[in-house]
Amino acid sequence: MFISDNYDVNAQGNLTIGGVDTTELAAEYGTPLYVMDEDLIRNTLRRFHESFKKYYDGKGEVHFASKAFCCLEMCRLVASEGDGLDAVSIGELYTAVKAGFPMEKVGFHGNNKTDEELRFAIEHGVGHIIVDNLSELSRLEKIAKDMGVKARIMFRLKPGIDAHTHKAVMTGQIDSKFGFAIETGEAFDAVKEALSCENIELSGLHCHIGSQIFDIEPFEEAARVMLRFIADVKNKLGFEVKELNLGGGFGIKYLEEHDPVPFEVYMERVSAVVSKECEKLGIIKPFIFIEPGRSIVASAGITLYEAGSRKEIPNTRTYIIVDGSMADNPRYILYESEYEAVVANKASQPRDERVTIAGRCCESGDLIGENMPLQHAEAGDIIAVLATGAYNYSMSSNYNRLQKPAVVFVKDGKSRVVVKRESLDDIISNDV
Amino acid sequence: MFISDNYDVNAQGNLTIGGVDTTELAAEYGTPLYVMDEDLIRNTLRRFHESFKKYYDGKGEVHFASKAFCCLEMCRLVASEGDGLDAVSIGELYTAVKAGFPMEKVGFHGNNKTDEELRFAIEHGVGHIIVDNLSELSRLEKIAKDMGVKARIMFRLKPGIDAHTHKAVMTGQIDSKFGFAIETGEAFDAVKEALSCENIELSGLHCHIGSQIFDIEPFEEAARVMLRFIADVKNKLGFEVKELNLGGGFGIKYLEEHDPVPFEVYMERVSAVVSKECEKLGIIKPFIFIEPGRSIVASAGITLYEAGSRKEIPNTRTYIIVDGSMADNPRYILYESEYEAVVANKASQPRDERVTIAGRCCESGDLIGENMPLQHAEAGDIIAVLATGAYNYSMSSNYNRLQKPAVVFVKDGKSRVVVKRESLDDIISNDV
Repeated sequence: MFISDNYDVNAQGNLTIGGVDTTELAAEYGTPLYVMDEDLIRNTLRRFHESFKKYYDGKGEVHFASKAFCCLEMCRLVASEGDGLDAVSIGELYTAVKAGFPMEKVGFHGNNKTDEELRFAIEHGVGHIIVDNLSELSRLEKIAKDMGVKARIMFRLKPGIDAHTHKAVMTGQIDSKFGFAIETGEAFDAVKEALSCENIELSGLHCHIGSQIFDIEPFEEAARVMLRFIADVKNKLGFEVKELNLGGGFGIKYLEEHDPVPFEVYMERVSAVVSKECEKLGIIKPFIFIEPGRSIVASAGITLYEAGSRKEIPNTRTYIIVDGSMADNPRYILYESEYEAVVANKASQPRDERVTIAGRCCESGDLIGENMPLQHAEAGDIIAVLATGAYNYSMSSNYNRLQKPAVVFVKDGKSRVVVKRESLDDIISNDV
Repeated sequence: MFISDNYDVNAQGNLTIGGVDTTELAAEYGTPLYVMDEDLIRNTLRRFHESFKKYYDGKGEVHFASKAFCCLEMCRLVASEGDGLDAVSIGELYTAVKAGFPMEKVGFHGNNKTDEELRFAIEHGVGHIIVDNLSELSRLEKIAKDMGVKARIMFRLKPGIDAHTHKAVMTGQIDSKFGFAIETGEAFDAVKEALSCENIELSGLHCHIGSQIFDIEPFEEAARVMLRFIADVKNKLGFEVKELNLGGGFGIKYLEEHDPVPFEVYMERVSAVVSKECEKLGIIKPFIFIEPGRSIVASAGITLYEAGSRKEIPNTRTYIIVDGSMADNPRYILYESEYEAVVANKASQPRDERVTIAGRCCESGDLIGENMPLQHAEAGDIIAVLATGAYNYSMSSNYNRLQKPAVVFVKDGKSRVVVKRESLDDIISNDV
């Protein structure tokens, strides 16, 4: 009935998420409201690590990409499932530390880490620092020396793969701000350089080819390219890389017509490629890391709004104006990302209108979506936008001095706040 | 030498803003840093209200559009110049109240105001509520009645003007989420409805045709359309509208090739159109409000970054990676908005390279700009991006859990923090 099985309709005809009536959530916590289904998040994490067991002898680790959705409780959840984290700033590292996260399961990313961040990462025992460029390597070597430790690193490489996806989220090609190119020899030189550093331990190589990818082939191809590079390093330098981080980018179902491959199929096929390729190349099978973000949390989340006015522009379009905006969901104005929406209190009725859902910001482009099938919506209705669990809360702003919404987790028919709604005093808290 | 006269180069060859060395600001306050020139903001406000005196007998009021840049100190500055504010949310109203702003000089906008916001606006004596739609009118009538007051309103109208500008910021045309269309009779019916409300005082009409507009003609044409509508209302309903709010949207110089009309010319020509049209139509000359936002603060502001690594991709492009990102300046990824940049510590050298300035977010599209002329930049250099005073701090997010930068005002060779840099604890302050 809906794009994800955790959305349903109850006897009252209201939309539910994880079995909880969304209209009751809106009444209890107010709108706009982010709601996330804890069980779906946990189950998805388990599907990934179960697949490692089934297809790769368990020689792998799932690192949730925090940038998709980060808060203390999410870090605690990931820790309780035994998984790791991919963090991209001191802010994400700090959140993990404060959540009591086992920092040895954290990979620290970023194309421009500061010295302060590198020190913080080492101080807190981060598992791997994924080094992006040579200037970072030399700064890290110096910092690690000063601190009297050996920093464990991976290198971020560009495998040169076209991931057939949106330009803005295509990161494995050579014209990227991230990492070292393999084909130019840059990556090879970096490995040589790292091996000559006294306070650096090169333990692995990393690649990430993009986001919201539906095909398996680019992932398989990236794995092949990385393994050939590992073999090349072994043959020429006598050094065997033992860890391979294949990044994330697995596509999810935002719309009915999207047909992502089940994660298990990805895991099976890529594991097979890795095993086969290693045998062929005469290298040991590396320990594998993956970094899913969107695929763990997107479908698990929805956003609830209250509809304000309905504006019918004759022969043009109908606007349904909600009490949220591009400040809580900037993905339509950023990328024209499409979402499905449901009138939560009319969820059993057919979606037989086409509307533009507009936000409350003073900006014409502030739309949640255009040409969206929806039940007939009027002022006071609760509008649920589906699959907003990734890159909505994490990208939210205070544009128009709007307060960021609360985030609520639902589980076993119960709900609880994991991020409090911003107060008016929060808005001015740093104003002098 | 630069796009705005308040930027200069000192004897040390460093970029200055309002006479203050930007490299010293970066050293004192850290980067990324928003810096704003207080004198330029004050002078621009004065140019607008002086023009009202010169060309329209002083019968006008400048309302700074808060959404371009809002904080306590900005509200205080505007108040000290005797100008008003345009606010679009309870967050902006609350900021004004806390700054001790004279609330009778505030116009409260929004296409989806909540009941809480309407009550707050009345409670604090907001000068005008600019009503966007009929459902807001009826809610406001009820709230005003409950509170035993008469709410003073304007109506937001769509004059049907094509402002020759970017689609996302074109708001005067009929297919807009904002306001009542004149040509369909919707606006006229709204006026009739308001006149029948006991607790509503209709004092004016408002229009806003878009943003970053370089031509004067659309503004003149909007004024004509609004005045013809006022005459129509007078003739048919015997009611004379005494206030006209012409909104904002005045273009500013982001790049050397931009050639905005001086504000005085706009004020002179639009004042002339209003005077002439009123005589022709036999209506009294209305009191005029304008709502400049970008034109008051954009050129007054710059953002300072420190360059991290420099990445030369052979035959492709050179990336200069800075310690800021789309989190502090989302306007390139949102609108492909272009900016000029200068290496602050090499400001006297020629900008003889073309580079891509990329941010530190884990997102390929996170660029500050592409193909930008710049001095040869290396790690440790201070990069100034010019004319970022509008819609940068106000649109900033915590994507990647990055901390929002501080905002510093400079004046008379001195500097002071007006918005403190976010701390790591701020980032998790609402996490449960």
